[in-house]
Parts: sequence; C-alpha cells; structure tokens
Amino acid sequence: MDINQIEPISRLVNEFSKLPGVGRKTAERYAYHIIRQSDDSAKSFSDAIMNVKAKIKFCECCGNYTEVSPCKLCRERSSKVMCVVKDPKDLMAVEKAGSYKGQYHVLHGTINPLAGVGPNDIRLKELLSRISNGETDEIIIATNPDVEGEATAMYIAKLIKPLGIKVTRIAQGISMGSELEYADEVTLSKALADRREI
Amino acid sequence: MDINQIEPISRLVNEFSKLPGVGRKTAERYAYHIIRQSDDSAKSFSDAIMNVKAKIKFCECCGNYTEVSPCKLCRERSSKVMCVVKDPKDLMAVEKAGSYKGQYHVLHGTINPLAGVGPNDIRLKELLSRISNGETDEIIIATNPDVEGEATAMYIAKLIKPLGIKVTRIAQGISMGSELEYADEVTLSKALADRREI
Repeated sequence: MDINQIEPISRLVNEFSKLPGVGRKTAERYAYHIIRQSDDSAKSFSDAIMNVKAKIKFCECCGNYTEVSPCKLCRERSSKVMCVVKDPKDLMAVEKAGSYKGQYHVLHGTINPLAGVGPNDIRLKELLSRISNGETDEIIIATNPDVEGEATAMYIAKLIKPLGIKVTRIAQGISMGSELEYADEVTLSKALADRREI
Repeated sequence: MDINQIEPISRLVNEFSKLPGVGRKTAERYAYHIIRQSDDSAKSFSDAIMNVKAKIKFCECCGNYTEVSPCKLCRERSSKVMCVVKDPKDLMAVEKAGSYKGQYHVLHGTINPLAGVGPNDIRLKELLSRISNGETDEIIIATNPDVEGEATAMYIAKLIKPLGIKVTRIAQGISMGSELEYADEVTLSKALADRREI
C-alpha cells in the first residue's frame, strides 16, 4: 500500500509538490507535518492561504502586491526617482537593502522573445504614463543582470532617454565581501570595465 | 517597506516557515508562488489541508494513518508476521520497498529517557494486546539503527521473546549500490560482524 492509496494524504502531497523546488519526498515530509499538527494549526495555515488570495492585489500604480491600491510606497514617496524591477520579489530585495527611498515600478516580466514575451506584455505603457507628468528625474533600472534583464534595460533606456529623463542601471561587479579568486570571468571583466576613480 | 508590513503575506510566510526545514527565504518563495496562482489553485491547496485533518485518523489496530479504521493493511493481511516501526513514514518506506507482505505496528516514538519517553509512552501495550491471540509467529523490529531505535528493539525483544514469538531485527550493514570506500566505520564494523555464509 503506497501513500498514494490514502487519498487525502496523496492529494495534500500533490498540492505541496506544486511549490517551487519541492519534490515528492519533501512534499511528503510537509504533508506528514500537517497531519501531526493540531486542527487549529492546520486551519490557520489553510486560512492564511485563502486570506492572501482574498486580500492581496496589485497596486494599480507601481504593480507591487498590496492590500490597498495605490500602495503605501506610491502614496508616501516622491516620484522624483523611480526604480524599475522585474518582480515584486525584486522590489522587496531592494527595500530590504534599506538605502533606496524612491518609488518603484514593477514590470511583471522582462522582454524575452524566445518565450514570446514582447515589450507590450510587460508594464511598460504603465511606466510611460506614470512619468508623463514630468515629475520624474531619474529611472533606475534594476532588472536582473542576465540576457533578458539587460535587453529590457536597453529597451527602456531607448524609450525614455528621448523624454529628457536620466536613465541609470544598477552597478554590476564583484559582490561585497566576496573574494576575487572566486569571482566568475564575466563578472570580473564587467568590474574591470566599470572601474571608478577613488 | 518590508514584506512584513503586508499582513496577509507575512502571515502566510509565517505559516510556511513552520514546515520542517523551511527558512524565511524559502517560505517567502512559497508565499509568492501562492499569490501568483489562480484563486482556484489556492483554494484547492487550502482545502487539501483541511481535508487531510478532517479525514485522516490513526488505525486503532496498527496505528498507521488511515481513512477507515481498522486500515486496509490490518483488514487484508495476515497477522503471522508483524513489522514494528517508529512512525507512519517508516511504514511507508517499508511498503515502498515492496517485498514485505505482513502487517505493521506503529509505535509512534521510540524509548528515549533523555527526552522523557518511556516504554509506556509508545504503543507497546497495543502491540502486546495484538499478539495475545497467538496468531503471530514473528515480530520484525524495523526501528532506526540509532541509539533510541536500538534500545527500543532490545526492550521489545526482552518483552516478547518469553511469549515464544520469534523476534528479528532488520539487517544493518552497507547500503546496496554504495562503495566500501565511503562507508562509515560503525556501519562497516557492523557489516563485518554480521557477515553471512554464501
């Protein structure tokens, strides 16, 4: 008798194995954990899932997750500087760094012709409409330093520079606290090319 | 603004981080996955959690998880041989191996004086009552090969041997397909001591 023959357990295992990076073995471990929990704990877990779906929506302005639209960041921060990111996860990463105090714009994707994602499939029109009031002086592009992220950065720069707005890209180079010895060739070449006077 | 300030998200992240081996970063990844899912997918996940709590109980006979008690294994298999395991997870592992066709008995723990778990805290009385009808010829003890598992095996052997029932322990030695070179000393010593004539 496999675990698959106990329908409620196998159903939960299936649900857990849909999570990113979770295989069958890990999903079984999670399912057993739930079974061992009290009914209250399980209910609170189950409720948290429904709650997040019921309450979280996209900010109509920046595209981040929020309970209230426009979100706190759009309401309370100046639109002089705007940081463009791919995902809400990336926005959170920049926020956690703690040094940036401007607004954000979440693209919800990057241009990727191979996957059929063109400029019209990401939130570029929304970006243009947000900066059309002339209040924004600088757009910082913080997409990932991969092919799609770079292509998207180039595309946005070409689109926005003609409007007289400064477009910058986050610095690419060796990570703080890392060792040169272990840096990959591409990163090290980039770090050399983008060297700064001190 | 940290993710913690969006209450429904941070609540879900907290729930996910209670899962075994899940840290904050992984929990956030899971939570974002749920947010990106359709409402239906989230509902089906949420329902699966409640469903498992509502429908899964312990088999009053062997102690395994089941929808109907006594479970299928207890109803359909002979009680001539009984395999004693620590957890339902271990039962599933033995079942998956596919070669064992007898009944099981789940202890729900092993004797561990340091953690305050004595013989009366695991399902030993239930085991004695199950074999009291004289139908069982052999008890296979398949607890883990660690201190608690070994101690529990010894305890059960002392308890049951006087009743004239054969008590065996699963073999301990080098894993199939592994290499001697990488086997640890304790395992290799055990494998040498328990060598068999061929």
